[in-house]
Amino acid sequence: MKRILARISYDGSGFKGYQKQPDARSVQQEMERALAKIHKETSWRSTSSGRTDAGVHALRQPVHFDTTLDIPEARWARALNSVLPKDIFVHECREVDSSFHARYDAVGKEYLYRMTCGEDYSVFKRHFEHQLREIPDRRLMQQAAGYMLGTHNFSSLSSPRTAVVDKVRTMYAIDVLKEGNSWTLRFVGSGFLYQMVRVMTGTLLEVGFRHRRPDTIPEMIAFEKRSAAGKTAPGEGLYLSQVFYEEAALQKHLKTIKKP
Amino acid sequence: MKRILARISYDGSGFKGYQKQPDARSVQQEMERALAKIHKETSWRSTSSGRTDAGVHALRQPVHFDTTLDIPEARWARALNSVLPKDIFVHECREVDSSFHARYDAVGKEYLYRMTCGEDYSVFKRHFEHQLREIPDRRLMQQAAGYMLGTHNFSSLSSPRTAVVDKVRTMYAIDVLKEGNSWTLRFVGSGFLYQMVRVMTGTLLEVGFRHRRPDTIPEMIAFEKRSAAGKTAPGEGLYLSQVFYEEAALQKHLKTIKKP
Repeated sequence: MKRILARISYDGSGFKGYQKQPDARSVQQEMERALAKIHKETSWRSTSSGRTDAGVHALRQPVHFDTTLDIPEARWARALNSVLPKDIFVHECREVDSSFHARYDAVGKEYLYRMTCGEDYSVFKRHFEHQLREIPDRRLMQQAAGYMLGTHNFSSLSSPRTAVVDKVRTMYAIDVLKEGNSWTLRFVGSGFLYQMVRVMTGTLLEVGFRHRRPDTIPEMIAFEKRSAAGKTAPGEGLYLSQVFYEEAALQKHLKTIKKP
Repeated sequence: MKRILARISYDGSGFKGYQKQPDARSVQQEMERALAKIHKETSWRSTSSGRTDAGVHALRQPVHFDTTLDIPEARWARALNSVLPKDIFVHECREVDSSFHARYDAVGKEYLYRMTCGEDYSVFKRHFEHQLREIPDRRLMQQAAGYMLGTHNFSSLSSPRTAVVDKVRTMYAIDVLKEGNSWTLRFVGSGFLYQMVRVMTGTLLEVGFRHRRPDTIPEMIAFEKRSAAGKTAPGEGLYLSQVFYEEAALQKHLKTIKKP
């Protein structure tokens, strides 16, 4: 038995999320259907670094699976791509130690939230960016983001619809980046709760549009109730962009992005 | 009765083309359904600058319609957008002379063909660009494009599946533009036959990949049969990008793009 780590990207717009569920198309279902086909079985298990919500995208998301087949690691990506639908793509596969776990071994993740602000609605971006007619105040958003950094109980800034009990996470970096009308919010943290990036984004936007003050964020976090935060931003702008398995790689990434 | 000229963009990936047809979703059908709704009628006519094929996109394509309603021209776009599906967007509407005709009055058009060359397949671009793993020779393509310029019978470089008899058109500019791995072929001409841009693109790509020589193009055009040309490039890379109604505007555009 060999354990393979695949890096997959998917366009989330055609899925009800990553996780398998009855009567809805999911990324996991398609991945496991492809694996079953290759293994000539009726089903095959896979484990991802985590779940994404309906409409949410992923860039090189790690997914591991065990195999009894003797396919060389360099051939796995092509084998999977030949049976996967067009909205999932496997960039690479490599053999990993059988103790590796795509979810439990993660020490950090990065999400990007993409927006276009102050332009005509574009039919071409509708599944890939959150489109806003107005332009928020970037400085205020960055200021509010500063209050979200560090270790907190993130109950206010995530959905209560979860079985997860420990809501303490650490945010290492939250940056409000802008190039012309294209905005990207970048979140790097130890881990993220259900809808956490979308609630943080919605809350930062309310600050950007002057519906709340940046300095109200600490109180909002301390309240530890979802009702204290802003609206959940739509899923289409969200991308899981990196998963870190080594503390050193995470620290190196943080150093790179901290350069202004 | 007032005549209104609308400028619409659409993501062609959800349509079987522009033109209304039984049992298939078309842009025209959605436009006319929206117009019928606003007019509180069961149907309403509209006329576009031309048709696009399945999967082909449009940027600000002109469509005219007549109306009995007294909606100010500045309100029309919002009225239409409120009833149109998310993959069609009306940028603006303005009142035009009742003699104006979106198709017959056109003196020139521009199409863009977008490609990514030499990168991993991207799930996000699959409906919007033609994705090639190999990198074609740009210089050869530009050389071949030079032979397509001018006035010719374009039977070789268009689909025979058409009722159009006169196949003579004039190409004013064909440019092979490149920025990193993003390529754009730009075609400006007096008019375009059925699948003409896609056949020209497919043929230019065969030149770029050294499957034909640039100097074989004149002979290929003179043959006046579709079989003489290359494959039809897929629809997803193609955008109708401009329609010109005044010779002066067309000439001005050509002058701008001729600056290197």
